[in-house]
Amino acid sequence: MIAPWCGFRGTSQVLGVTSVVLTGFNLHPLCMVLGLVFLQGDAILVYRVFRNEPKRNVKVLHGIIHLLALIIGIIGIVAVFDFHREAKIPDMYSLHSWCGMATLILFCIQWVMGLLFFLFPVASSWLRASYLPVHVFCGLVLLVMAIGSSLLGMTEKLLFSIIRQPYSLFTPEGVLANVLGILLVCFGIVLGYLITREEYRRPPNPEEESLSVHFKTLTEGASPTGP
Amino acid sequence: MIAPWCGFRGTSQVLGVTSVVLTGFNLHPLCMVLGLVFLQGDAILVYRVFRNEPKRNVKVLHGIIHLLALIIGIIGIVAVFDFHREAKIPDMYSLHSWCGMATLILFCIQWVMGLLFFLFPVASSWLRASYLPVHVFCGLVLLVMAIGSSLLGMTEKLLFSIIRQPYSLFTPEGVLANVLGILLVCFGIVLGYLITREEYRRPPNPEEESLSVHFKTLTEGASPTGP
Repeated sequence: MIAPWCGFRGTSQVLGVTSVVLTGFNLHPLCMVLGLVFLQGDAILVYRVFRNEPKRNVKVLHGIIHLLALIIGIIGIVAVFDFHREAKIPDMYSLHSWCGMATLILFCIQWVMGLLFFLFPVASSWLRASYLPVHVFCGLVLLVMAIGSSLLGMTEKLLFSIIRQPYSLFTPEGVLANVLGILLVCFGIVLGYLITREEYRRPPNPEEESLSVHFKTLTEGASPTGP
Repeated sequence: MIAPWCGFRGTSQVLGVTSVVLTGFNLHPLCMVLGLVFLQGDAILVYRVFRNEPKRNVKVLHGIIHLLALIIGIIGIVAVFDFHREAKIPDMYSLHSWCGMATLILFCIQWVMGLLFFLFPVASSWLRASYLPVHVFCGLVLLVMAIGSSLLGMTEKLLFSIIRQPYSLFTPEGVLANVLGILLVCFGIVLGYLITREEYRRPPNPEEESLSVHFKTLTEGASPTGP
């Protein structure tokens, strides 16, 4: 299944990069789409792209890209709070802000939980195995919430400028924003498809799983079979 | 795993019914949330709720609830086109309308494909087995798109009435709409969790699968082993 996989992967990257370029008009949307949509999506995708590389390396890469996504997301949030303060606009009144903030907070929690459970395993292997499907599900939910929040933000932005340029007259700005919205939806669909299809999954490797459980021990130089 | 299943199922129903009640202020949002969110969600859920009932009956119920959802969705779309014509508002210019219309069109295609492949199987059993995961994935995508479109519509509605009642002043109408938006997101998350967890899946039944493939033949009164 290499050919369709490459096609879908390539499509996801074209959709993602185009979306990031189209939001380049302003720091807040640029950071949110680059961080919480494109990088979050690609961080999830590393398990599919590098499915034959050692799992430990892929895990570290997954964590680093997510950290980068989180930092860029926080820069984007700070940018909009600064803009609100200067323009004397109240914060956190809209559905966009509620959904966006919920996404960022849950993203932070997900990242810390992932770090504790999978990179520095403080939990037992039973607890980790139970948490893994929840972590995977929550990751996909967060990607969808980030895309949804972006679309809400774009609708807000378009309707705020309704007095200068009526959105309902099919202005180029409005149509371009709609196209960007559809591209983001398509990015989410392609990513979701790649992530959930069984045939693109990382093949299970019992030996690696066993090593992976003891990653903390390994990095400390002790025996993999140690406590 | 009956106890958490019942809890999640109950939660999904409370969230869904509350969302429908909260949108009762206007025909368009009422129909879209009742049809394409609540009923679509529940139509998907029948495979989990009735997982010990004969598959054929569950399939028919799944198709009927989806048909009801589709009819209610079309009533909702017609209502907003009528409203636009009377108020001389252009159609289909906003991201909400693009996403909403895409959802309805894809929903129709999904319903017809489901009917052809699974209720009146014109496709071979190999083709049906290949299409099933795509059908399941598209169903979940359509539910998410319906929820996303609803949130976009609510943001539009709130910003259109910005001159009468500024949304940014935390008016009760604005806060209530935000709460409805969050309820819809929660409904989607709980549904998504119920649908994707392995332990809530319908247990496989090879005998039933074999009968199911020949459902068309069975309903025509011929032998299940016939062509």
